[in-house]
Order: sequence, then C-alpha cells, then structure tokens
Amino acid sequence: MYFPTPAECGHHTIFGNVALRTLAGDHMQLSLVDVPPDGVVDWHSHPNEQMGMVVKGALVFHVGDEVKTLHAGDMYRIPGGVMHKVVSLDEPAQALDVFYPIRDEYR
Amino acid sequence: MYFPTPAECGHHTIFGNVALRTLAGDHMQLSLVDVPPDGVVDWHSHPNEQMGMVVKGALVFHVGDEVKTLHAGDMYRIPGGVMHKVVSLDEPAQALDVFYPIRDEYR
Repeated sequence: MYFPTPAECGHHTIFGNVALRTLAGDHMQLSLVDVPPDGVVDWHSHPNEQMGMVVKGALVFHVGDEVKTLHAGDMYRIPGGVMHKVVSLDEPAQALDVFYPIRDEYR
Repeated sequence: MYFPTPAECGHHTIFGNVALRTLAGDHMQLSLVDVPPDGVVDWHSHPNEQMGMVVKGALVFHVGDEVKTLHAGDMYRIPGGVMHKVVSLDEPAQALDVFYPIRDEYR
C-alpha cells in the first residue's frame, strides 16, 4: 500500500514510444516518464496541474510561449490548461511528473 | 514562472542536516530532499498527502507499521496523517517528495 512495486504500478505508452510508470495516491499521481532519444511528447493540455523534475538526461520543454532545456535536477510547473510539448535530444531522458487531480486514463 | 531556477526555489534545512529545495505550484509542492550519510528525518506526520520517488542512493522508509528500503526509482505514497520516518545508510541519498496541499512552512 505504501510501497507499490513497479509491477503494481500502471504502465502506459504514449506518443508511440514514450513509456510511463504511474502511481495514484489519494489526490495526486506520479508518472515516471522515459523518453527515448529524439522522442516527442507532442503539444497537448489537460485541466490537471502538472509539476515535476528531470531525473536523467535533458529534455526541451515548450510550455505556452516559453522554451527551456532542462537537465537532471531541474524542476517545472505547468498550470492546468496550458499547452505543452516535450522533446528529448540524442540521449534517453527521464522525468518524474506529478498530476493533481489524478488522471484516470493513466491509472 | 514555468521553469524556476534553483535560486528561485525555497531552501530549508530540517532535522539538523537534511536539505530541502522546494517549489510550490497552484495546488502541489515539490521538495527535493538531500539526506547525508546516516541522516534521519525523524517520526512525524502532517495532514498533507505525500508521495515521491527515491532519485539517488537508498533510504529506509518507516511508514506506520511498515518498513522498506527503497532505492533510486522506487516510489512511495504516504496518506495524510500517517506517521513516518526516513533514514539514510552510509551514503548520501536524494528523494523527490510532493505534497498536496501545499505546506506553507516549506515555501
């Protein structure tokens, strides 16, 4: 209950080759995102607030009209309803996203 | 606004030598926790839900009556009001916590 194993997490693939490992709590949801080299999480938005941190590698975040390349340890916050896109470079990258409220489609 | 630098984050030290870098959004709050070797985040609880993932090293989590050693990539969820304690081993460790709702004392 407190310490779900990876097998007990949700597993999803989005945008063809971007892998998610997800865990819902009571109000929030973690999503560990593995982006392969030259991967693209294309433009989208959702009413849920999204925050997170790059864990490994580098990712180019496009949020609204802003663009910034984030490296391991860099944090971001994407308010609900704001369009965003994330692109990797020539190396795999990993980020930990968190959503509020929970996204049922990612359970 | 979307990409705060570390200097724009909150910085706190708890339990003597445990360093936090925090970032509040609209509803959630990230807290990157650096625990030195043999560090202790002693027993406490808060009404806020807490979830997170170990980013580097290993941490022994005590949550309620459960104990588990978590390594980089392992996730946890601690419902509001549940007592918990976190202890490092002989190496530094890092975890990314997220809280809902925001803890004003960690802004």
